Amino acid sequence: MELVFLGTTAAVPTAQRAHPGIALCYRDEVLLWDCGEGTQRQLILAKVNFMRITRVFITHLHGDHFLGLPGLLQTLGFQGRERRLHIYGPPGIEELVERVLSLGEFELEYEIEVERLAPGMRVRGSGYEVEAFEVEHGTPAFGLAFRELKGRRFLREKAEALGIPPGPLYKRLQRGERVVFQGRVVEPEEVLGEEKRGFRVTYSGDTRPVDATAERAGDAVLIHDSTFDAGEAEKARSRMHSTCTEAARVAREGGAKMLFLTHISPRYRDAGVLEAQAREVFPESHVARDLLRVDLLALRKERGWWK
Amino acid sequence: MELVFLGTTAAVPTAQRAHPGIALCYRDEVLLWDCGEGTQRQLILAKVNFMRITRVFITHLHGDHFLGLPGLLQTLGFQGRERRLHIYGPPGIEELVERVLSLGEFELEYEIEVERLAPGMRVRGSGYEVEAFEVEHGTPAFGLAFRELKGRRFLREKAEALGIPPGPLYKRLQRGERVVFQGRVVEPEEVLGEEKRGFRVTYSGDTRPVDATAERAGDAVLIHDSTFDAGEAEKARSRMHSTCTEAARVAREGGAKMLFLTHISPRYRDAGVLEAQAREVFPESHVARDLLRVDLLALRKERGWWK
Repeated sequence: MELVFLGTTAAVPTAQRAHPGIALCYRDEVLLWDCGEGTQRQLILAKVNFMRITRVFITHLHGDHFLGLPGLLQTLGFQGRERRLHIYGPPGIEELVERVLSLGEFELEYEIEVERLAPGMRVRGSGYEVEAFEVEHGTPAFGLAFRELKGRRFLREKAEALGIPPGPLYKRLQRGERVVFQGRVVEPEEVLGEEKRGFRVTYSGDTRPVDATAERAGDAVLIHDSTFDAGEAEKARSRMHSTCTEAARVAREGGAKMLFLTHISPRYRDAGVLEAQAREVFPESHVARDLLRVDLLALRKERGWWK
Repeated sequence: MELVFLGTTAAVPTAQRAHPGIALCYRDEVLLWDCGEGTQRQLILAKVNFMRITRVFITHLHGDHFLGLPGLLQTLGFQGRERRLHIYGPPGIEELVERVLSLGEFELEYEIEVERLAPGMRVRGSGYEVEAFEVEHGTPAFGLAFRELKGRRFLREKAEALGIPPGPLYKRLQRGERVVFQGRVVEPEEVLGEEKRGFRVTYSGDTRPVDATAERAGDAVLIHDSTFDAGEAEKARSRMHSTCTEAARVAREGGAKMLFLTHISPRYRDAGVLEAQAREVFPESHVARDLLRVDLLALRKERGWWK
């Protein structure tokens, strides 16, 4: 499982930072979180196969977060995509996609299914879910919480104590099915323990620091709006963004494993100041940069996060 | 005067080539010819001041040639632009700009004036004109011919022979005004010679090779569609593009000074083959690459093109 930062700027691009976009590569799928202008090219530069994108999430309808959509949709068409594409976004996303599809002359051979996000909505995929939660940005805006679904732990010793032989019955119990063994009904509850821990990645989108993000940051890799440094708290408030320190507090209060600061204002040529200030509050703070790849499997192993 | 290639790919971007865009920097103005996705960032990377853009020309309404427009217009707004912007394009450009301005939440403090191109139309600026000419691309499509207007040569010896003293009268005659000297009317015709040679840059847009381009290639730096190599002539025909060899023939027949091949299909990782084939027909052929700057003043001097 890999997290790839495609663009990390705020509003206006710089030589170093393209418009917002994050690719979450999970098994053979790519989930795209925001799709700023230039995202298709950043995907190419990052060597992420854009044909594997199954779901695109647009956190809010500010241009810098979705203006890569028209080009990406057309390019997928040019490349012969036939597989359906899901696009999720705040209210207005249906009209937006309609407009986007009216730009230029082209035909798509694949279907696009557009779905409006709502607070608490969970999008279920194969082995994961993405929960949308409301954040504060002065326009309908969502954060996104990816959670790997690994199922509950199988308590082998309990199954053995019940005399059930290892094999197909274990598998069925593990899947949550009731089985009959030697005339006795065995409920999965009897042999299943706690939920297994999977990867969690939480993205704040553009927002003020809010509890809803902290509540979903536990054990997660948190990606948070960090448009300004600590000295610009007033600006962050009035523009409905966060400072690096505010982002770090959300990470600390929520119990995140690691924090990536993104949506960096073009004023910071060297974003080191943001990282330094954030680390005073939350030591595992890192400024994201374009094309940064985070290999979550390797990180888990290296940091011994859990088994 | 500088010519800056912002993007040189065809349809789909590559790691090396962004979507089409050409900046023509003349005096304190920048003319933008096509505006593919990512153009605003390419302008930043090329260190071309996008606040100086006065006129944007969209050659035709295929997405790869205009999907950078929404982001550019919004960024100009974020940066506080107040100066009017002219946008020119084929029929449909008005509706397109309207749609583009409906993407996202933002307000612009500057006016946008949209004008439809027509064959033979000349857009006059300060010291130059841009002529639009019809090309063949299966959709309404234009080529663009920039011509520096330097006025007519002042024949000093004739003025002297008429006894006119150097000074303000020379200036007025040079501007084409009639003057009275010692009771005699002097017509500018009497002291003005041929048109002075200025820079010419002709851009084919996406097209099959056509006479209209060759007719405007004389003495010019020609930028031509060169999507395919010579071996793919059939594909070039059916897709309404040109091969490198076809582009070179237009340059040769038109009497161009220099040819830049652009709109290079992503299939060519190394576009050297295109250059080699074109040079067999027209030796001054060069494959354009992203962020290539062509200093026309320096070139004129170096090649001794004219005085």
